[in-house]
Amino acid sequence: MDETNRQVILTARPSGIAQAEHFAVRQAAIAQPGPGEILVRNHYLSVEPAMRGWIADSDNYAAPVAIGSVMRALAAGQVVSSGDDAYQIGDDVTGWFGWQDYACVSTDQVVQRTSAAEMRASLGILGINGVTAYLALTSIGQPRAGETVLVSTAAGSVGSAVGQIARILGCHTIGIAGGPDKVRRCVETFGYDSAIDYRGEDVGAAVARIAPHGIDIYFDNVAGRISDAVLPHLAMRGRVVVCGTASIDCWMPWPQGPRVERHLLVKRARMEGFVIFDHMDRYADAVAQLRAWIAEGRLTWREEILDGIEACPDALAGLYRGENDGKRLIRLV
Amino acid sequence: MDETNRQVILTARPSGIAQAEHFAVRQAAIAQPGPGEILVRNHYLSVEPAMRGWIADSDNYAAPVAIGSVMRALAAGQVVSSGDDAYQIGDDVTGWFGWQDYACVSTDQVVQRTSAAEMRASLGILGINGVTAYLALTSIGQPRAGETVLVSTAAGSVGSAVGQIARILGCHTIGIAGGPDKVRRCVETFGYDSAIDYRGEDVGAAVARIAPHGIDIYFDNVAGRISDAVLPHLAMRGRVVVCGTASIDCWMPWPQGPRVERHLLVKRARMEGFVIFDHMDRYADAVAQLRAWIAEGRLTWREEILDGIEACPDALAGLYRGENDGKRLIRLV
Repeated sequence: MDETNRQVILTARPSGIAQAEHFAVRQAAIAQPGPGEILVRNHYLSVEPAMRGWIADSDNYAAPVAIGSVMRALAAGQVVSSGDDAYQIGDDVTGWFGWQDYACVSTDQVVQRTSAAEMRASLGILGINGVTAYLALTSIGQPRAGETVLVSTAAGSVGSAVGQIARILGCHTIGIAGGPDKVRRCVETFGYDSAIDYRGEDVGAAVARIAPHGIDIYFDNVAGRISDAVLPHLAMRGRVVVCGTASIDCWMPWPQGPRVERHLLVKRARMEGFVIFDHMDRYADAVAQLRAWIAEGRLTWREEILDGIEACPDALAGLYRGENDGKRLIRLV
Repeated sequence: MDETNRQVILTARPSGIAQAEHFAVRQAAIAQPGPGEILVRNHYLSVEPAMRGWIADSDNYAAPVAIGSVMRALAAGQVVSSGDDAYQIGDDVTGWFGWQDYACVSTDQVVQRTSAAEMRASLGILGINGVTAYLALTSIGQPRAGETVLVSTAAGSVGSAVGQIARILGCHTIGIAGGPDKVRRCVETFGYDSAIDYRGEDVGAAVARIAPHGIDIYFDNVAGRISDAVLPHLAMRGRVVVCGTASIDCWMPWPQGPRVERHLLVKRARMEGFVIFDHMDRYADAVAQLRAWIAEGRLTWREEILDGIEACPDALAGLYRGENDGKRLIRLV
């Protein structure tokens, strides 16, 4: 065991996306677990778009990360000391362990048990990304075979899973992504029937051309101008899964956009927000379903591994620069 | 029987709300019903906010009224000649009979059978307004006892029914209306627990004060600035029933407003459009429920009767001037 615990601390609150300068790496003592706690040696740290919201000092689904504290993050690692009989030294676990080498946490911070083989996947396709894709699509989108499903950030960790799951469920799938590489990946890697490059195409015109009968389910990870171009093309009784707002840099001042009420009324359509934390009772079942599809070769994913905790401070900003190529993970061990 | 049929014709398409000058009253021959048709002598003609949408030449849930044709309207009257064995002379019926003295229509234009005693109510509380209120509130809003329901155009034909039904179902009710008279009527006549005057108060501040735990159901008939003030105060898992957009004069160019995605995501909230024409299979059951509540003295309504077909051309614009005092009807007989 290393002598000290390196931790990535949030040092200032950004007004937009957190950049490298909003974080610092510090050394701390390794705490020892008390009753009901475990000490986890993190092997992989997760980097995800939602972190921007966890950092922002505005209304959100969780309290913002406090200045001076360890950056909130999912991580996967191994139990190295335990104060809880349910966890043994050597157990592989995934949970809210933060951007640090060692996490001394209450066992209620464990999200799932994992294994050495699935440790990385447990932070992506077999973790919060895949489970979000599956549960949000099925619970709010309620796809039926033959329907048309449109996905924004279609090549991303959540979006790529949504597209593949919708296809497994018999839907026609259309992806929206930025740049020719991601668009090609949508079709070649993730099996979308077609894909739209929002940087190079008029999204509304492309949707109208590809889906002349309208979009039954719009799985939206971005909000903003892409969504504005999509909403006029909803099909009758269309559903909009509001899963993220990645294209909106800042909610202060509150951004304006075309009003949605008329679309919802004329199309008898529905828009609904989804946050995975409300659905933890279905998490394990969702993971089991995703694992089965992977075993059948019907569900794939991409990972991008950065090495060393020093990569953390710039890793989130890099996501928003669009430079990642798959689920971004930081490897510590 | 009169010699001629007076008809109110749409003569020009307004860019905003149809004014008196967009209509003309003309004389036409009274047609005789063929097979499957009936001739109805209209006793009462309905005037409703939704007519603006039926006239507008933009995307809507029904094709726009053609220039030169009789204004589309619900009306109630008596069968005076029948080409359909299911209808006898003397039957009282409500349906899509238009703004005219006599309607010669296919019997599929009949919405419901009525009676002399219920003829006026069949155009309001026991008709499209009451049924819309009941079905939209229950199917999309899904109220549970103890929840807080906020209603815009709370003293209107639909809104006043929504408030009363929500109260019957055990909800705490808040109305939004324009001016002290309507606000007083919300509380005194329609039993709202409180009411907000959008002309004289800061709606957002008032909602926050009256409903500090948030709004579980927002029944929205207006969209626009009132809704913008309400949405930040949705409760967790709030529902927004999008039933009308009365405050938006025109959708060309498309109006802008604060983005809704973040509210929906943070509150895991849902917005959904409702159009009564999708729910005609439940219409008769809804009327029966509403009639029962009226018989129990738990549901009331207001009517405003204008006399003579000459009142039609200005009657719709008058609604939007806010000058009506209850469900506006035109009495012909």
